[in-house]
Amino acid sequence: MVHAPTVELFSYWRTSATYRVRVAFNLKNIQANERFINVDAGEHQSPEYLKINPMGAIPALILSGKAPLTQSLAILEFLEELQPQPPLLPTDIFERARVRSIAQMLAVDIHPLITPRIKKHLMHVNGFDDALWKAWQSKWFTTGLSALEQRLASESATGRFCHGDSPTIADICLMSIVVVMRIFKITVPDIPTIDRIVTACEQLDAFVRAEPMRQVGAPSQ
Amino acid sequence: MVHAPTVELFSYWRTSATYRVRVAFNLKNIQANERFINVDAGEHQSPEYLKINPMGAIPALILSGKAPLTQSLAILEFLEELQPQPPLLPTDIFERARVRSIAQMLAVDIHPLITPRIKKHLMHVNGFDDALWKAWQSKWFTTGLSALEQRLASESATGRFCHGDSPTIADICLMSIVVVMRIFKITVPDIPTIDRIVTACEQLDAFVRAEPMRQVGAPSQ
Repeated sequence: MVHAPTVELFSYWRTSATYRVRVAFNLKNIQANERFINVDAGEHQSPEYLKINPMGAIPALILSGKAPLTQSLAILEFLEELQPQPPLLPTDIFERARVRSIAQMLAVDIHPLITPRIKKHLMHVNGFDDALWKAWQSKWFTTGLSALEQRLASESATGRFCHGDSPTIADICLMSIVVVMRIFKITVPDIPTIDRIVTACEQLDAFVRAEPMRQVGAPSQ
Repeated sequence: MVHAPTVELFSYWRTSATYRVRVAFNLKNIQANERFINVDAGEHQSPEYLKINPMGAIPALILSGKAPLTQSLAILEFLEELQPQPPLLPTDIFERARVRSIAQMLAVDIHPLITPRIKKHLMHVNGFDDALWKAWQSKWFTTGLSALEQRLASESATGRFCHGDSPTIADICLMSIVVVMRIFKITVPDIPTIDRIVTACEQLDAFVRAEPMRQVGAPSQ
């Protein structure tokens, strides 16, 4: 099932939230036309883009004739409902809740704290320098991933991936944090279960092809 | 359908995320036993509570014999799947995406920035005083609600509530921000559509009964 002519993704090579949607497209074999919004050049704050998403946030998804869809977690749920196979959520409602909870530990408890708008505000309004910003990033990556490690290591539902033996939106959100940490050259120690799951994800072409550094607009090294 | 003996909600009177779950319980007429975790006294960081939620975050939900469920948005989706009536999400997948997107503008783009752990870190590590903290809160409440106002005012799917004429998880998340703003005595100007929807929500007993100041443990005034 391919929606190529009708699916338009407003994206940027580096953003964690776009990466999530890109992996879901790959896993579900949905072909999207990516339209690159240069966040570093401020295109996400242009009047044209603000008509698509008043928050000025990436990504936004447009299926022809429909209003733009925004917010990456909402888009992931939409794609799951649009094209259920292969599933990115389990069928059991308790298991679905676990997967969503793990996804939110990453996409809600970590990611909003380290976005470009927060960096800009802390540096321009609150006088952070590079060292303070890096300490801020490290604090929230470490706090969140350490708590997640404890869950993943102790809960029997953890498998080859965050939940069982096939990738879910939890793994998509985990990898969306990991790829950003790499760009920022931040490491979190003592998370062996997470490290193992990251390796499992990296063996899947759907995750590899979505990597920020492989996208149009990414720096050449 | 009542699950009284088996539903245990670990809660605190003031937290925005607990409020969301409490409203959903009320709308769906699910009876839960609330177990109060005194966040101000640090009980959410006690070894006992960290066994339930390693993030030390409120709320957590336990249905007897099952592992604890955490993350309020995941719990809302779970309750919707557990007991679909009355629905807190539309049936059309595009409409569901819109409702989830609005919910996430509130619960993902605003709320994580103004939680107690962020306040504690900014004040104790980054030297914020009360004025800087209040400015930080105002910045993110205003940015997020102004963008949401633009959406709600311009999109035809907006009705008496954020989406159509019955409450959804979008309204629950909107009110979860509003009740917290009131506790902090913060107001955001020029959001007439939001103000109108807030008034509509406040006419529903399910929202009124969930208000922080009406919960056990709340200050008497």
